[in-house]
Amino acid sequence: MDFIVVGSVGLDDVETPMGKVENALGGAATFISLSASYFTKPVKMIAVVGGDFPTEHKQMLEKHKVALDHLEIVEDGKTFRWGGKYHQDVNVRDTIFTELNVFENFDPKIPDILKKDSFVVLGNILPSLQQSVIEQLEGDNFIVTDTMNLWIETAKQDLRKVLKSTNALIINDSEARMLAEESNLIKAAKIIREMGPEYLIIKKGEHGALLFHEDTIFSAPAYPLESVFDPTGAGDTFVGGFAGYLHKSGDMSFENVKRAVIYGSSMASFCVEQFSTKGLESLNESKIHDRLLAFREISRFDDE
Amino acid sequence: MDFIVVGSVGLDDVETPMGKVENALGGAATFISLSASYFTKPVKMIAVVGGDFPTEHKQMLEKHKVALDHLEIVEDGKTFRWGGKYHQDVNVRDTIFTELNVFENFDPKIPDILKKDSFVVLGNILPSLQQSVIEQLEGDNFIVTDTMNLWIETAKQDLRKVLKSTNALIINDSEARMLAEESNLIKAAKIIREMGPEYLIIKKGEHGALLFHEDTIFSAPAYPLESVFDPTGAGDTFVGGFAGYLHKSGDMSFENVKRAVIYGSSMASFCVEQFSTKGLESLNESKIHDRLLAFREISRFDDE
Repeated sequence: MDFIVVGSVGLDDVETPMGKVENALGGAATFISLSASYFTKPVKMIAVVGGDFPTEHKQMLEKHKVALDHLEIVEDGKTFRWGGKYHQDVNVRDTIFTELNVFENFDPKIPDILKKDSFVVLGNILPSLQQSVIEQLEGDNFIVTDTMNLWIETAKQDLRKVLKSTNALIINDSEARMLAEESNLIKAAKIIREMGPEYLIIKKGEHGALLFHEDTIFSAPAYPLESVFDPTGAGDTFVGGFAGYLHKSGDMSFENVKRAVIYGSSMASFCVEQFSTKGLESLNESKIHDRLLAFREISRFDDE
Repeated sequence: MDFIVVGSVGLDDVETPMGKVENALGGAATFISLSASYFTKPVKMIAVVGGDFPTEHKQMLEKHKVALDHLEIVEDGKTFRWGGKYHQDVNVRDTIFTELNVFENFDPKIPDILKKDSFVVLGNILPSLQQSVIEQLEGDNFIVTDTMNLWIETAKQDLRKVLKSTNALIINDSEARMLAEESNLIKAAKIIREMGPEYLIIKKGEHGALLFHEDTIFSAPAYPLESVFDPTGAGDTFVGGFAGYLHKSGDMSFENVKRAVIYGSSMASFCVEQFSTKGLESLNESKIHDRLLAFREISRFDDE
């Protein structure tokens, strides 16, 4: 099963209470791919950048065995750019600017050799583009989907189509409430699972994450962080760790999907410890496994 | 070690999206005592009611071995009354009325025979009254304290005095942020622990609870409830289960305090399943232990 990531690659200007960076590597596909690369290789990234996309970023991704064969480079175009500023409470952010540039005409094409029996991660892009990817696929695929409040508000019908083909949906708690039109998260999860996804993961930021599958629920803790340097990409990084681990293990049992949620949470906790992708560039199996054990330690209790 | 609960006993009019009740038994001391009674007996309740306090409520409490010897009855006075209405999102409620009545002049007196080496639960009352209880105590006591946003705003200096003598403080996340003047909960917890409490429990409603002690953290999940009938008293019920279990076991190790947090959460989950104290009136050891196992099941994961 090939491992394919579809989404944005961009350059970010980010300011947080801990500092600021300009022209930093960003984009959903970037964080997903880099995070997944610690579990499965190669990661086939399908995205678009402009001729201005720095070589050093390509080199860093390639060093992590993120395959860029299908990264479209529009030589006379400019890379997608985003600027954001986080408040003292880093759960709140303002978008300062968004320049879609070459991303405006992004029309993901899945190469024939990847169309069949693949593990496909649909990063947060327009649901109609996610659907076009799904329609290009053949055979038995496993689809992990991310989305956002904007698409739930403005493109709900397209999103509902995507969900019909989605095996695992990863959203946050306010998105889940909005999508299900239900304030109780447990009820909301049932409603969303009926829209298609066998597995539903609801991320709750500093409160951890919930996994829903059939009649079972798993509650994952959050990693206790005193300082969040930069929350940008944490959600995408979760998706990458979750999907990468599942793909590597090839085991879709509930017990294993629980571990995938913890690996996703672990990777996200590394991501926010530094700016941009820096927190994800120098990890290894042992650091990641230690973080998983730390998650177990803070949530474990014995019955007498 | 005697087990003493100090706090309010009242009659509540409550409306929730699931229905309404009038003149229902309420008050912090009520919920704490009833919840604790499943772990340790007798619970010595120190509170005040009016001559109008229904005999059936006294009988129900006594049936659970809540000792009412020190319940002051002001024959020509009226019992504390509170009316509240919960929104569709039951995390939000409006207070419709508050009639302090005999509670206005509540001045808790600890009988001499209970003053020494007791396990004392200070329900959410004016911090100066909590402090007056502390000053009546002698010997080696263990003090569990509850409080609320109102006292953090209006009586912070008194509260700080109470915290100096508090062994375990139980508050919710917004109260913790307010008390510490810090938005990051992990940092806030450190700041609050420096104010006195060896154990700090931060309740997060549908997101579970966190326990802080020395350099360790425990993250307890929430019980997944599709319908909350009536959240009134859930926080007090948590306190009662937590304190009652700790008192019974007499074991203040971190491992055991973790279990106390789960027992507190379990009792609170029973509380909200019915109106008033109804969800707490017909429990038994086996039902409570099964709920603890359910908490473990939803939070347990294995390392490969």
